[in-house]
Amino acid sequence: MIIIVKQNTKEERIRDLIAWIESQNLRTHVSSGDYTTIIGVIGDTSKLDEELISGLDIVEGVKRVSEPFKSSNRKFHPQDSVISVGDQKIGAGHFAMIAGPCSVESREQIISVAKSVKAAGATMLRGGAFKPRTSPYDFQGLKADGIELLLEAKRETGLPIVTEIMNANHLPLFEDVDVIQVGARNMQNFELLKELGRIRKPVLLKRGLANTLKELLMSAEYVMAGGNENVILCERGVRTFETTTRNTLDLSAVPALHELTHLPVVVDPSHATGVARYVKPMALAATACGADGLIIEVHNDPPHALCDGAQSLRPEQFEDVARCVFQIRQTVQQLG
Amino acid sequence: MIIIVKQNTKEERIRDLIAWIESQNLRTHVSSGDYTTIIGVIGDTSKLDEELISGLDIVEGVKRVSEPFKSSNRKFHPQDSVISVGDQKIGAGHFAMIAGPCSVESREQIISVAKSVKAAGATMLRGGAFKPRTSPYDFQGLKADGIELLLEAKRETGLPIVTEIMNANHLPLFEDVDVIQVGARNMQNFELLKELGRIRKPVLLKRGLANTLKELLMSAEYVMAGGNENVILCERGVRTFETTTRNTLDLSAVPALHELTHLPVVVDPSHATGVARYVKPMALAATACGADGLIIEVHNDPPHALCDGAQSLRPEQFEDVARCVFQIRQTVQQLG
Amino acid sequence: MIIIVKQNTKEERIRDLIAWIESQNLRTHVSSGDYTTIIGVIGDTSKLDEELISGLDIVEGVKRVSEPFKSSNRKFHPQDSVISVGDQKIGAGHFAMIAGPCSVESREQIISVAKSVKAAGATMLRGGAFKPRTSPYDFQGLKADGIELLLEAKRETGLPIVTEIMNANHLPLFEDVDVIQVGARNMQNFELLKELGRIRKPVLLKRGLANTLKELLMSAEYVMAGGNENVILCERGVRTFETTTRNTLDLSAVPALHELTHLPVVVDPSHATGVARYVKPMALAATACGADGLIIEVHNDPPHALCDGAQSLRPEQFEDVARCVFQIRQTVQQLG
Amino acid sequence: MIIIVKQNTKEERIRDLIAWIESQNLRTHVSSGDYTTIIGVIGDTSKLDEELISGLDIVEGVKRVSEPFKSSNRKFHPQDSVISVGDQKIGAGHFAMIAGPCSVESREQIISVAKSVKAAGATMLRGGAFKPRTSPYDFQGLKADGIELLLEAKRETGLPIVTEIMNANHLPLFEDVDVIQVGARNMQNFELLKELGRIRKPVLLKRGLANTLKELLMSAEYVMAGGNENVILCERGVRTFETTTRNTLDLSAVPALHELTHLPVVVDPSHATGVARYVKPMALAATACGADGLIIEVHNDPPHALCDGAQSLRPEQFEDVARCVFQIRQTVQQLG
Repeated sequence: MIIIVKQNTKEERIRDLIAWIESQNLRTHVSSGDYTTIIGVIGDTSKLDEELISGLDIVEGVKRVSEPFKSSNRKFHPQDSVISVGDQKIGAGHFAMIAGPCSVESREQIISVAKSVKAAGATMLRGGAFKPRTSPYDFQGLKADGIELLLEAKRETGLPIVTEIMNANHLPLFEDVDVIQVGARNMQNFELLKELGRIRKPVLLKRGLANTLKELLMSAEYVMAGGNENVILCERGVRTFETTTRNTLDLSAVPALHELTHLPVVVDPSHATGVARYVKPMALAATACGADGLIIEVHNDPPHALCDGAQSLRPEQFEDVARCVFQIRQTVQQLG
Repeated sequence: MIIIVKQNTKEERIRDLIAWIESQNLRTHVSSGDYTTIIGVIGDTSKLDEELISGLDIVEGVKRVSEPFKSSNRKFHPQDSVISVGDQKIGAGHFAMIAGPCSVESREQIISVAKSVKAAGATMLRGGAFKPRTSPYDFQGLKADGIELLLEAKRETGLPIVTEIMNANHLPLFEDVDVIQVGARNMQNFELLKELGRIRKPVLLKRGLANTLKELLMSAEYVMAGGNENVILCERGVRTFETTTRNTLDLSAVPALHELTHLPVVVDPSHATGVARYVKPMALAATACGADGLIIEVHNDPPHALCDGAQSLRPEQFEDVARCVFQIRQTVQQLG
Repeated sequence: MIIIVKQNTKEERIRDLIAWIESQNLRTHVSSGDYTTIIGVIGDTSKLDEELISGLDIVEGVKRVSEPFKSSNRKFHPQDSVISVGDQKIGAGHFAMIAGPCSVESREQIISVAKSVKAAGATMLRGGAFKPRTSPYDFQGLKADGIELLLEAKRETGLPIVTEIMNANHLPLFEDVDVIQVGARNMQNFELLKELGRIRKPVLLKRGLANTLKELLMSAEYVMAGGNENVILCERGVRTFETTTRNTLDLSAVPALHELTHLPVVVDPSHATGVARYVKPMALAATACGADGLIIEVHNDPPHALCDGAQSLRPEQFEDVARCVFQIRQTVQQLG
Repeated sequence: MIIIVKQNTKEERIRDLIAWIESQNLRTHVSSGDYTTIIGVIGDTSKLDEELISGLDIVEGVKRVSEPFKSSNRKFHPQDSVISVGDQKIGAGHFAMIAGPCSVESREQIISVAKSVKAAGATMLRGGAFKPRTSPYDFQGLKADGIELLLEAKRETGLPIVTEIMNANHLPLFEDVDVIQVGARNMQNFELLKELGRIRKPVLLKRGLANTLKELLMSAEYVMAGGNENVILCERGVRTFETTTRNTLDLSAVPALHELTHLPVVVDPSHATGVARYVKPMALAATACGADGLIIEVHNDPPHALCDGAQSLRPEQFEDVARCVFQIRQTVQQLG
């Protein structure tokens, strides 16, 4: 960490700052120029609070040289991580096609969708049992019953299942779930993340609506610091002023995260755009820029679905998307 | 709710939509013009999922006529709510001056700050015991011990205390806390909000980094739907592209929330700006536009504080801010 | 246009509003329900000021049924537009690969880059002669001399040239330029757009830093309303809170614009990301989601370039990007 | 400027960078630590392109120690600037109350509004003659005739006039205008700014929809670099995801700009909120945090006005706002 001290700061105050930094088991290297004094901080600065220091009245600016994320940092782990999910893998060339309905609604629905997405090439089944809803009056999911139905669909099709958790107290219900999803609104629910660090099950961590990629990595760090290294990152759009799409899908997150971290990165074009017609082009784009997987909403019978929505594809539409995605993926891999 | 159907939609599909709406105990009123068909939905549409309907391929657009928030809505509760906190009140002309350190650090610190802010006119003491931190390696607060120290400061000064909760499982520790704060990152932690709906203690609910005012009210609704009507809203800045301040304080939230809801609205100029020098002007501005209170960071001994930061005032600075705020408040009230 | 009137509005005020609307040669269709009155406005509402009406105190909300853009609207022009640029075409299956340096610096530089990008498959040459710079102290381009050098490169290679205009008074200098670019900062410089409507040369219109897709189309409308239908739209990233990339590339703009308009859409991954390493993945992604072309920064001799920057590729890097883009494009076209 | 070089960069490449910097008449001071090399750049770095350097592959980061704005920088001009407008002043304790209609519509309208706002305490008259409109089909202003009518209102009332320019070619029409306004959409129309640097008339420069405060200052720098030091800055809201207000008024811009620059800062609560009901609270807030003036929309006869809008006040409402603003201003000044 480089600390730039303001011009004309009294020597004494600089000495106080240095003393405080060194009291935290860090070394300093001071360079005084004509116009400014620079303090280089050497050691494990990941525990140093950047915001606190940059707020000091004698500090002009702070610049981290090493990132505050460790476990997820590619610098310390150059190879891509591969995360195993049942007999499936994701990362380092293994591509995950995760598909399924927004909400689990009934036995018939989830099994029918599971069968059709499997036939189309999906490698995992997604479905919401606990649903985070902006309004307390909206449908909140089938909860424990929804998880039971997902497990039934898993037994029926062999597809590993991915479903969202909203409360660490529900963890016992997730015993047989294959991947636990943390939604965008809980990306900085640090208490939940810590609990997920205590287990060893893969966690699919969605980027928050207004969170930077570095914050996403710091949240992954919460899980990994607890010992659970099985984190899958998910870009699902950020909030901007644009209203044509529900969110703005930030696909440059894919190469940027691949540079910063060894963790796999999947993309959710359904929630990002909120418009079924844009799911296919965005799925192809995500695949072309190197995403390690996709998570796509598919429902069986639109007109009667509770969540018959803007963003869900019908099974035959998903089949077309999957076919095209696999084709683009093959081309990308041939390009090397 | 007004649903505008796309041009050239088949009669049959419109009939299906109407049937589905009516199956939810709502009535419809259809108006067919030369260019479009409009379905007016009558009844308690707050339970109707706007996003779902606007996503249907036959729907051009949806416009709510009545807001989806009920308990917090001023239309159904025209008088300002007054919330009692110990022997203090907030709302409907009662102004809360909440002050204290970012984190509780020691007995000496919290009692010293409590005494000095009380002397300057503070009506409540704030202090963090459980701290939400972006990094798992940053100081996470004194936790239960921090709450104990806050209670000691309360006994010493008589000031009611405000402190943040991050996990509903910690609720027993908050038994004697006067106001439970929900931080910006937990504004849409719906499971936590539901638990806070089961108690009757005042909840200070901070606006999320990228949440609209209507989403803030929907989160208040989660607490109120459980029966806890003691919600205090807090504007603390939203995330934008501007980097001079940590966040962008949205003061128009004050008159806008006062129009939409009967709940009191406080402003946090410390977290919003992240710069101690801007706390005073922003505190005055918030008071001038009608805020029902302020929440301001004050630390006792900056050079040695763990959180000696950009945004905290020294006690003598707070004294000046408080004096000026009370003066502006008096002028505003005289203006009527 | 649908106008929803507030509950309990006096009859007289509604009549005044209707009279005012009808005075503008529009017809109305009024539907009064139990809870609300809805005024349907029939006729050419594109000239009606939506913001003005929605601001009236008796108006609950306004919803356009027809978009305010006419000339660019796909509804009235279902086929993709094809724009001719010299002997090249863009749109409706014709793909433009536009490449070249940020700034024209010297005869050697621009001719060398032009030759190398042509060899790699570029169909047009870009280069800045007039440079919009945030600081008046930064290099502002070679101006008229820069255009002369571009024309020389055109004569040498046969590549049509694309360069930015900042002032309508400079138009005579652009006589032999093939495509006139309007930069993001001038997207709403309406006076400039009007002047470009008076000529018939293709205009490459970049989306503003914080402009919606509908505003981009309204700016295209300024050019087209003047009679110049040769508008090429360009997505180049929008401004968000994310700092890893210079802007946030909004690739969902590609399918969304293709749905709204018949105009071709190109993508600029260089300015969008500001990082040369991300140009290739984003170029592939843009191609996969159906962009009609790319505009990519390439410089010849990085270490000595004035603009040796974050975002420019070296010629051999561009060759690799172009090869991969053409491969993805071929796969996408085979998918149908 | 501090340049932090990436770890493990070859000596030779660092030498090249230093040579290039020194070739631009700057000196360097190099400090090599265990982990990193830091290059301090000494001299007038305002002409150095930060983006270019931070984009070099061997550069970890760049931090400016001195700001790139010179003429507007408070460091080199500690006293507040006072700008004279006719017999009025603004800045350094002089408060400007600028009021008038969105658009000039007729002789009767502008003279009537001018008289009423003058009676209420306005010190300048605003009114749009050239109107920037998102749609080419919306009313574009009375243009030259509008300026004539403003001048007539000036002769009638003695109020200096403020009106917007959109095209430098129109400058001759602005001969007798007192303050030339540059709208938000033209904040980075650098060609227009340069032309305004050639005259000596005060320029009221509005912040762009998504521009930082530093970019606003760089745009002021364009005018000042030409020799015109009479720049008045205007905060008018930035674009965010919030939809309750048209823009998000960033009042922390007032103290932040006062710290960075000696130029006066005015606030436009009408355009910022887009809602007449919020103009008063935001005008009071702006005054309380130290704005040097306000610019407020007032129309005379709402029901018949072309721009009878969401954001305009009636004369009697403006009278109330002005009275309260002056009262708050007095209290703020007494507080010291």
